[in-house]
Amino acid sequence: MRPVGRCWRAALVWARARGAALGTTAGRRRASGPSGELRGEPDKFGGVSVRLARGGALDRLDAAAFRSALRAAIHEWQSEGKIAVWLHIPILQSRFIAPAASLGFRFHHAESDSSTLTLWLGEGPSRLPVYATHQVGVAGAVFDESTRKILVVQDRNKMKNMWKFPGGLSEPGEDIGDTAVREVFEETGIKSEFRSLLSIRQQHSLPTAFGKSDMYIICRLQPHSFTINCCPQECLRCEWMDLVDLVRAGNTTPITSRVARLLLYGHREGFDKVDLTMEKLPAASTGLLYKLYHRELPEKCAL
Amino acid sequence: MRPVGRCWRAALVWARARGAALGTTAGRRRASGPSGELRGEPDKFGGVSVRLARGGALDRLDAAAFRSALRAAIHEWQSEGKIAVWLHIPILQSRFIAPAASLGFRFHHAESDSSTLTLWLGEGPSRLPVYATHQVGVAGAVFDESTRKILVVQDRNKMKNMWKFPGGLSEPGEDIGDTAVREVFEETGIKSEFRSLLSIRQQHSLPTAFGKSDMYIICRLQPHSFTINCCPQECLRCEWMDLVDLVRAGNTTPITSRVARLLLYGHREGFDKVDLTMEKLPAASTGLLYKLYHRELPEKCAL
Repeated sequence: MRPVGRCWRAALVWARARGAALGTTAGRRRASGPSGELRGEPDKFGGVSVRLARGGALDRLDAAAFRSALRAAIHEWQSEGKIAVWLHIPILQSRFIAPAASLGFRFHHAESDSSTLTLWLGEGPSRLPVYATHQVGVAGAVFDESTRKILVVQDRNKMKNMWKFPGGLSEPGEDIGDTAVREVFEETGIKSEFRSLLSIRQQHSLPTAFGKSDMYIICRLQPHSFTINCCPQECLRCEWMDLVDLVRAGNTTPITSRVARLLLYGHREGFDKVDLTMEKLPAASTGLLYKLYHRELPEKCAL
Repeated sequence: MRPVGRCWRAALVWARARGAALGTTAGRRRASGPSGELRGEPDKFGGVSVRLARGGALDRLDAAAFRSALRAAIHEWQSEGKIAVWLHIPILQSRFIAPAASLGFRFHHAESDSSTLTLWLGEGPSRLPVYATHQVGVAGAVFDESTRKILVVQDRNKMKNMWKFPGGLSEPGEDIGDTAVREVFEETGIKSEFRSLLSIRQQHSLPTAFGKSDMYIICRLQPHSFTINCCPQECLRCEWMDLVDLVRAGNTTPITSRVARLLLYGHREGFDKVDLTMEKLPAASTGLLYKLYHRELPEKCAL
């Protein structure tokens, strides 16, 4: 990548010189300033990234001088035909956010100790990729085929008296099946093993997801223990229920009722009729394995 | 909800009085300050939310006074047994972020013109819900059953010469099938209609997803037009290929090859063997309809 830092440095020297002429604090700084921390790096999509350093010379730069330098740099990048600017700011340097916002930057995302802002310079609406849009919730339908019992819970916090499958949000980096097994154990004390995906639900604009979207996935799990140890913080009740009773139950959610019917159909006709099984495949670009879910495919299909 | 603003106002008055004693700028402000903008509202999970207003009296509050008031308020909330503080800050008030961070706040998320920071006050590791963790990518496998042709593209930007299905990231609030139909049309000019979900892939820690996770879903689409109009910005090549040739192709990704085999199996044995069909169900809490995907269930299953 060819650094475009020189235009940043030139802009900062100009800003400081202008500050000196105006008698501001910025003008009294040394000419060799924090230009290293404000270097812009081009990306392969026609944009440029600026990563503000943590501390160092940047600590001595005030918001007004930063704004002047940034404005000059934007003008430079526009003349070079850059279509976007990405600005990465450590949380303790967040005094630079408002000046950037006054020049049109907006938050792209933020997490932990850093925020990223963007400014679209190209034509038409922004074509910048958006940040994560979905949370993933996973429930485990723990079904004991030998007794036709299904593990169900009644939430403490939400819709009381409605039977549903135990579950919760995936943790960052956690696979779907692992979330199901973990949540089942945390809420009910039951140990289980992933068997298949059964259903996927998508919803948008959820207040419970900070206005974002939600992918809710129900998995079929096989139990490996049967003694319930209900977590009182999360569940009012927890029990092994006959699957037919759950299908018939009025006090359950539509999705729970639907998946109960799927399970019953699978129990009677074979789970190969309802399951999405998991297989590991290598990613084309890295070779790292990922999990792929789809209907079971016979191993040998003649071409 | 019972407002807990009084502790905030008391803290601000105290901070200003202290500032007056120290001769700072904060001390010279009027006693009736921006307390209204700093009101904390309790939530049902034992936390409290503070929403800084856009402008108004807050504009006259300096970062040091804010930090003093916030520190006092945190102490108050801790003594009340609050387990978390949520701080919502408009982008132009971002000078308050660093002072909050110096007291232990960290970014929870940020988008457009606002950021949200959190401070965990409870015991053990934070139990606060995380923000969105996944982007959703969708591809469309446009298969013409009458000719056994499948629509494939070669990307301009990524793995050149590798055949794959056209696709891209879901836009915020966009349903899976709509993404598939839209992306197919944008990349190839082909109009199509959603038929089913075929596969779901999950990956984590993707550099192309800002370190977040990715759910990649391939849908089966039925074509409604056949004249290709390839988008040169995205595709090097685009064509209708015999499905058997795609299954045999060496220059394709493992997932494309696998889904091609699924399609061939469905073409021969019936797509009911590979499809996840979509149905709309009402959300239990709101009654609003969402889309649910699972294996097709016979309408009447005797209990």
